[in-house]
Amino acid sequence: VTICKRVITIAALWPALCLLAGPVLAAKESGAKSEPAVSQATQTCLDCHVVATPGIVADWKKSRMASRTPEMGLKAPELERRITAKREDIPQDMRQVVVGCAECHTQRAKKHPGSFDHEGFRVHTVVSPQDCATCHPGERGEYSQNLMAHARGNLANNPVYMDLADHVNGVQKVSGGKVVYEKPTAMDQAESCFYCHGTEVKANGTRTVTNPDLGEVTVAKLSGWPNRGVGRKNPDGSLGSCTPCHTRHQFAIQAARNPATCAECHKGPDVPAYKVYKVSKHGNLFQALSKDWDLKALPWTVGKDFNAPSCAACHISLLVTADGAVLAKRTHRMNDRLWRRLIGLIYSHPHPKDPDTSKIKNADGMRLATTLDGKPASQYLIGEKEQASRRATMAKVCLGCHSDQWVDGQFQRLKASIKSADAMVRASTREMQEIWRAGLAVGPGKGSPFDEYIEQLWIEQWLFYANSVRLASAMIGADMGVFENGRWNMAKNVQQMRDWRKARQGRAK
Amino acid sequence: VTICKRVITIAALWPALCLLAGPVLAAKESGAKSEPAVSQATQTCLDCHVVATPGIVADWKKSRMASRTPEMGLKAPELERRITAKREDIPQDMRQVVVGCAECHTQRAKKHPGSFDHEGFRVHTVVSPQDCATCHPGERGEYSQNLMAHARGNLANNPVYMDLADHVNGVQKVSGGKVVYEKPTAMDQAESCFYCHGTEVKANGTRTVTNPDLGEVTVAKLSGWPNRGVGRKNPDGSLGSCTPCHTRHQFAIQAARNPATCAECHKGPDVPAYKVYKVSKHGNLFQALSKDWDLKALPWTVGKDFNAPSCAACHISLLVTADGAVLAKRTHRMNDRLWRRLIGLIYSHPHPKDPDTSKIKNADGMRLATTLDGKPASQYLIGEKEQASRRATMAKVCLGCHSDQWVDGQFQRLKASIKSADAMVRASTREMQEIWRAGLAVGPGKGSPFDEYIEQLWIEQWLFYANSVRLASAMIGADMGVFENGRWNMAKNVQQMRDWRKARQGRAK
Amino acid sequence: VTICKRVITIAALWPALCLLAGPVLAAKESGAKSEPAVSQATQTCLDCHVVATPGIVADWKKSRMASRTPEMGLKAPELERRITAKREDIPQDMRQVVVGCAECHTQRAKKHPGSFDHEGFRVHTVVSPQDCATCHPGERGEYSQNLMAHARGNLANNPVYMDLADHVNGVQKVSGGKVVYEKPTAMDQAESCFYCHGTEVKANGTRTVTNPDLGEVTVAKLSGWPNRGVGRKNPDGSLGSCTPCHTRHQFAIQAARNPATCAECHKGPDVPAYKVYKVSKHGNLFQALSKDWDLKALPWTVGKDFNAPSCAACHISLLVTADGAVLAKRTHRMNDRLWRRLIGLIYSHPHPKDPDTSKIKNADGMRLATTLDGKPASQYLIGEKEQASRRATMAKVCLGCHSDQWVDGQFQRLKASIKSADAMVRASTREMQEIWRAGLAVGPGKGSPFDEYIEQLWIEQWLFYANSVRLASAMIGADMGVFENGRWNMAKNVQQMRDWRKARQGRAK
Repeated sequence: VTICKRVITIAALWPALCLLAGPVLAAKESGAKSEPAVSQATQTCLDCHVVATPGIVADWKKSRMASRTPEMGLKAPELERRITAKREDIPQDMRQVVVGCAECHTQRAKKHPGSFDHEGFRVHTVVSPQDCATCHPGERGEYSQNLMAHARGNLANNPVYMDLADHVNGVQKVSGGKVVYEKPTAMDQAESCFYCHGTEVKANGTRTVTNPDLGEVTVAKLSGWPNRGVGRKNPDGSLGSCTPCHTRHQFAIQAARNPATCAECHKGPDVPAYKVYKVSKHGNLFQALSKDWDLKALPWTVGKDFNAPSCAACHISLLVTADGAVLAKRTHRMNDRLWRRLIGLIYSHPHPKDPDTSKIKNADGMRLATTLDGKPASQYLIGEKEQASRRATMAKVCLGCHSDQWVDGQFQRLKASIKSADAMVRASTREMQEIWRAGLAVGPGKGSPFDEYIEQLWIEQWLFYANSVRLASAMIGADMGVFENGRWNMAKNVQQMRDWRKARQGRAK
Repeated sequence: VTICKRVITIAALWPALCLLAGPVLAAKESGAKSEPAVSQATQTCLDCHVVATPGIVADWKKSRMASRTPEMGLKAPELERRITAKREDIPQDMRQVVVGCAECHTQRAKKHPGSFDHEGFRVHTVVSPQDCATCHPGERGEYSQNLMAHARGNLANNPVYMDLADHVNGVQKVSGGKVVYEKPTAMDQAESCFYCHGTEVKANGTRTVTNPDLGEVTVAKLSGWPNRGVGRKNPDGSLGSCTPCHTRHQFAIQAARNPATCAECHKGPDVPAYKVYKVSKHGNLFQALSKDWDLKALPWTVGKDFNAPSCAACHISLLVTADGAVLAKRTHRMNDRLWRRLIGLIYSHPHPKDPDTSKIKNADGMRLATTLDGKPASQYLIGEKEQASRRATMAKVCLGCHSDQWVDGQFQRLKASIKSADAMVRASTREMQEIWRAGLAVGPGKGSPFDEYIEQLWIEQWLFYANSVRLASAMIGADMGVFENGRWNMAKNVQQMRDWRKARQGRAK
Repeated sequence: VTICKRVITIAALWPALCLLAGPVLAAKESGAKSEPAVSQATQTCLDCHVVATPGIVADWKKSRMASRTPEMGLKAPELERRITAKREDIPQDMRQVVVGCAECHTQRAKKHPGSFDHEGFRVHTVVSPQDCATCHPGERGEYSQNLMAHARGNLANNPVYMDLADHVNGVQKVSGGKVVYEKPTAMDQAESCFYCHGTEVKANGTRTVTNPDLGEVTVAKLSGWPNRGVGRKNPDGSLGSCTPCHTRHQFAIQAARNPATCAECHKGPDVPAYKVYKVSKHGNLFQALSKDWDLKALPWTVGKDFNAPSCAACHISLLVTADGAVLAKRTHRMNDRLWRRLIGLIYSHPHPKDPDTSKIKNADGMRLATTLDGKPASQYLIGEKEQASRRATMAKVCLGCHSDQWVDGQFQRLKASIKSADAMVRASTREMQEIWRAGLAVGPGKGSPFDEYIEQLWIEQWLFYANSVRLASAMIGADMGVFENGRWNMAKNVQQMRDWRKARQGRAK
C-alpha cells in the first residue's frame, strides 16, 4: 500500500483507515468470488482519498461499478446488459477488477492533454465520453449523434445565437444617458449559457492550490472548469459528458431515470420541460407513487416497474412488457424518438439531419433552420418519411399504456398547438419587422436584433412562450401552457408590442 | 378463452401470455377464496390487452379494485367502507367479481352514445361518473353538487368568461399595422382552458386508426377526446370525471391524497394553490416526512397516519382521531368546507348557492357574482349563517392540531387579506375605468374588456395577484403572496397602469 | 389523573382514552427503564389534549423528546449529543422525565408576560428560544448571533426597508386620477413580510374564543399571533423562534435537514435559494436519491448517510467523515460559513459584523451597507481576514466531496458572478438616478424611492434578479440564474428603464 507523502495529518488516522480499507484489501488478496477485486492502482487512490475527499469515495462505494467487474457485466443476458463493448475491446487488465478511480482517471491518460503527475500516477481530471466508451461504446456512439453532445458548438459556432448570448451575459455600462454592452467574460458565459451547453475545457500545464489540511497541492491548470454541461468539449477533443445524467461517483441509474436530473437544465422558461412534466398526469403519478416503483430494474418493465413514465422512459430507456417483448430500444440519440424540434428556435421545424446545427443556413443566409417569416431550410431537415418513422417509434411507447384512439387524438392536438404557437410567433415577428421598418428599433443588417427592450419582448415570444405551449401539448401538462408563460403570455405580448409601437407612432394604427 | 383475431403478431407470445394469465384463470375457475374471481368478460379483455396495452393492465392489477369484489367491499365497517351503494343496487352479476375492464367499459354501454362493437363486446371508451356511481353513488351525488363538476359549463356558458378565453387562445393576425384576433379552434380550446375545465366529449360513430403492430383498428369517433377535465361533459350526458384525482387504472387513494394530483390544475398563476401549499408549513412537512406516513389508511387518523394535511385532508377526506372520533366527514362536494370563493373571479365573495355559476347575474347584467365595483349579487350567494356553518366545519379540521387561539387568529388574518386584496383589485379597476372613460381603451359595452394590453394588465391584478394573496393567507404560505405574483405585484400593477395612463395623457395627474 | 372539567363531551370516550394513555401511565408508575417517565403535569395536559388537539399529541409522541429524558441525552457521546446544557443547569425535576407539554409550556411561565391560568396550570402559549435554552443553550447562543434571529428588527427598525415594505403592503386608493398609498395594517404586515421575518408578539391579558365542541375557552390575548417567523420578538423579550426549522411538535431532525423546510421563506424571487438548489446537482441528487439516505443520523457522515448536501449540510450541520473526523462543526450562527452577503441588499458586500444590521449607516447617511453607488460602509462589515477564514470553513465542506481544483474554480466563478451582478445593479441605478435627476420620478430626499412604477423596475434589478444570479453561482444552479429572473432579466430591465426614459425625453439619447 502506497502512503501519500503529503498527508502527514492523516497519520494518526491510519489504524481507522486500515480498518475501513481492510475488507476491500482482503477480498483483493484472497480473490474471493463474493468481493470482486479492486486494482492496486485504485486502491492506492482510495487510501488517500478516503481522507482527502471522503464523500466521493463513499459515494463510489455505493455504485454498481464498485462491486462489479466488466467481466461480470459481460455475462448478463442481453436485455440486462449494461456493457456494449465486446470482451476483446476491453483492456485485459481492466476486465477482472471493479471500475474504480484509476480505471477512469489514469487509463487513457496519454490521450488526455490535461494529465499531470500525482502521487506516482499520470492522472487526468476530466473523464470524457471516450473514457466511458471503453465499456460503453454503443451509448457513446449514439450520444455523439445526439443534439446534446453538440450543445456547446451549436451555440458557440452560431453567430446568431452568440449575438443573443452576448446580450444576455454582457455587462451594460450606463454613462451620459448612453448604454453600452461589454463583451461578456469567459467566466460569465461559463456560469450562464455554457453551464448547460458545456464549456470548452482546455489544459494548460499545472498550477498550485492551497488545501486547508494538506497545504499546497499541484493540480492541472484547466480553463472552463468545473463544468458538467452536456455538450462539453473535453481536453481529449471529445464532445459531451456522461455525468450530467449519470452523476459521478455513484452513477445511479435511478438518478438518471429521475426527472429531477433532467430538470437541472430543462426547467427555466426557455426549456420548461420539467415544469410541464410536473403538472402532467405522468409527473403527477411519478410524484405520488414512484417511491414504490423500481427505478433500478433492467430491463425496465412497463406497468410492473413503473406506472407512469419519467423523461427517460419516453426518450431513452429500453422498455419491455411483462412478457419480455421490447416496446422500445434503448437510445442515447434521443432524436430517434423525436420528429420535430419544439424548443431552442424561432419557429418549430422538422428535426435537423445533422446534430451539428451550426451548419444550417436559411434562405436569408442566417444560421437558423427557418427564416424570420417561418420558411424552413428543408435541405438541412429530415423529410416526411423519417418524421413518420420517428413518430411511430414514440407512438409505440405511448401505446404501452394508451389506446390507439387516445394517442392519435393527442398527436393531433400537438400538431394544432404547434401550428397556433408558430402563428403567434409569426404575429409578433410581423410587429417586430414593422417596428424595424419604421426605424423605431435597429434590426438585422444594421445592428443586433437582440439588444433593445422591444426586441427582448419579441425574443420572449419564441424563446419562452411558444416553447411552453408546444411542450405543454407534447407532454400533456396544459397548466404550464396557458397562464404560466403560455398562451396568455403570447396573446399579451403581441398586444404589448403593438401598444409600444402605437405609443411611438402617435397611436396611428 | 377468446383469442383476439387481429393479434396475429402475438401468437408467438401465447405461452408467455398463458403463464401470466394462469393464476388469474386458475383462481377464477377454482373460485378460491384468496383470489376473488375475474369475470369472463374482463378476462377476455385482459387476454388481448396484456399485449395491446400492457402498461394499464399491469397498473390495474396493482389496484384495489382488481383484488376485491363489491361484495367484499360492502362488508367493511362503516368508517372503512369505500362503497356507498346499497347491496341491492349493485347488479347481481357484478357483486362477486372484481371490478375490471368489462365492469366499467361495457356494463352501461347502452346508455353511452359512444359505444361501439369491439371483439364481441359493446364497449364505451369514456367511463363517466354514472358508471362509477354503480358502487359509489354517494360520492357521485356529492361531486355533482361540487363546483368542479360544472367547471366546463361555468366557463363555456358564461359569455364574460368565454370572451376572456377567446382572447387568450385565439390566434392573432398582424397585417398592415392591424391586429385581428381569430376565433380559437376547438383543438386549441381543448388543449388550453378546457384541459382542466373539461371538454364536451361527443360520439359520432366510429373511425379507423393505424396501430404499429395491429394495423387498422376501429375505434369510436370522439370529439373533445382525450380529456380528463374535472367538469367534462360525457357522451352519456353526465358531468365530470373521477379519474383526474382517482387516476386510472390503479385508482390509488394515496395518489388522490397527494397534493401533486391537485397540482395538475392548481399550480399556474391563476390558481397557485399548490405553490402556496408547498411553502406552507403543511407542505413543508408533507415533503419532509410523508414517506413515513400512511396515505392509504381508511379511515385516516390525524397525527397517527399523517402529521400535516395534504389538500384532501382539509377539503375532502374523512378524518378521525386516534380514539376513533370523526373530526370531519368525507365530502366530494368541497364547498361543504368552503365559505368564500377566493379565486376565479374579480372580487372575492360568499360561495354561490348553485354549483352552476353561469346563471349568476350582477346588478349591471353581467354574468359575474359581483359588479366591477365589487357589489355582490347576493341573491345567488350563500348567506351569513351558511358561511358561519361552513367556516366551523373547516375550523374543526384545523383544531385537530391547532389551538382555538391559533385558528381564530389565522381566520382573522385571512379576512384581512381578502379585504386588502379586494381593495387593490378595486384600485386597479378604477384605473381601468378611468382609462376606458378617457377613450384610451375600448371597454365593456363598446368592445371586449379583455383584448388590449392595458386591459391585460388589469386582468392580471385579479386573475393572478389577488388570488395569490388570498390563497397565501388561506393556506398559510406567505412566501407565494408577497413577491411571487402577490402583494408586490398588486402594488406595482396599479402603478404601472397609472404610469401608462399618465404617459398617454401628457403626464397630467 | 386530573379530568379536565370542561370536556364533558369526552366523557363517553373515557375508556378509549384510558386505553390510549394506559401504557404511558403504566410506564410512569412502574418506572420501567424501557419507557421513560412522563411528568404528572404533562400527563394531565395529555389527558385532555389527546381529545382537544389529537393531531399534535400524536405528533409529539413520534418525537425524540417524547421518549428520552434529558438525563439520557446527557449520556450520549460528544458527537451524538444534542444537549449542550450542563447537567447542573437543567432543573432537577426535568432531568428524569421526557420533554412534554408542561416542560415547555409551563416551566418558565413567570418569565412569560403572556402566561394565563388554564386547568390548574400557569401556561404560556409562545415557547421561546429561552425555553429551549434550558437544554440547548449552545444553539440558542449561536442563533442569537445569527442574522435570522434579528430578521424582524433588521426590517422594522430600518426606515429604508420599512419604506419599501409600506409600499408593498399598503392598500392604494385611486380617486380622481390620483393614487394614494395607505399605511398597511398590522395584519397585512404580519401576513406578508413579517410572516418570515417574525412579528412582535405582545400579550395583553386574556380573551375568550368559541370552540365548536368545548364552547367558550379562555386563552391569552396575543397580538402578532400566530407567527413562526425566524426573528420573532417573543413576549419574554427574546428574539427568534426554533420551530420554523425544528417544527413543533415532532421536532424531527430529518425535517430540519430537508430543503423543503428552508423553502418556506427562501423560495420567492427575492430569495430564490430553494429554486436554485433544486436545479443544482446537489438538489438533483437529493430529489433522486434521498429516500435511501439517513437524514436522522447524528453525527452526519458525508458519503455514507447522504451523497449530496441539503441546505443544512453546508450551512449548519455537524459533518463527519466515515473515519469519524470532523469536517465541519455544528453552528446555528450560519454566518460562520458565510463571508459575503448575496441577498436582501442593493449591492453584495462583506458580511456585517453585528447581526443587528439596523445600526449600519452608509456614507450618505442611509441605513444601508453600501451607498447607492456601491461604496461599502466598511466599518460595519467584516474584514478581509475574517472573510478568508469563513471562506475556508465553507471550503472544507465542499472539499468533503470535491477536489481542490474544483472548489477553487467554483469560488472564482462566484466572485465573477458577484462582480457582474453588482455591475448590472450599478447600470440600473445610474438609469434611475438619471431619471430622478430629470424629474421624471421623485427620488430620495424628496419622496419615497420605492413607490413609482419606474422605481419598482429598479427595485426588481437588485431585489430579484441580482440575487438570483449571485445565488445561482454560489449554489451552482445556473438554470435559475439565466432566464428565470436572472441575467436575461437584468439585461432586459436596464433596457426597459432606458426605453421608458427615452419615451419621456423625446427619444433623445
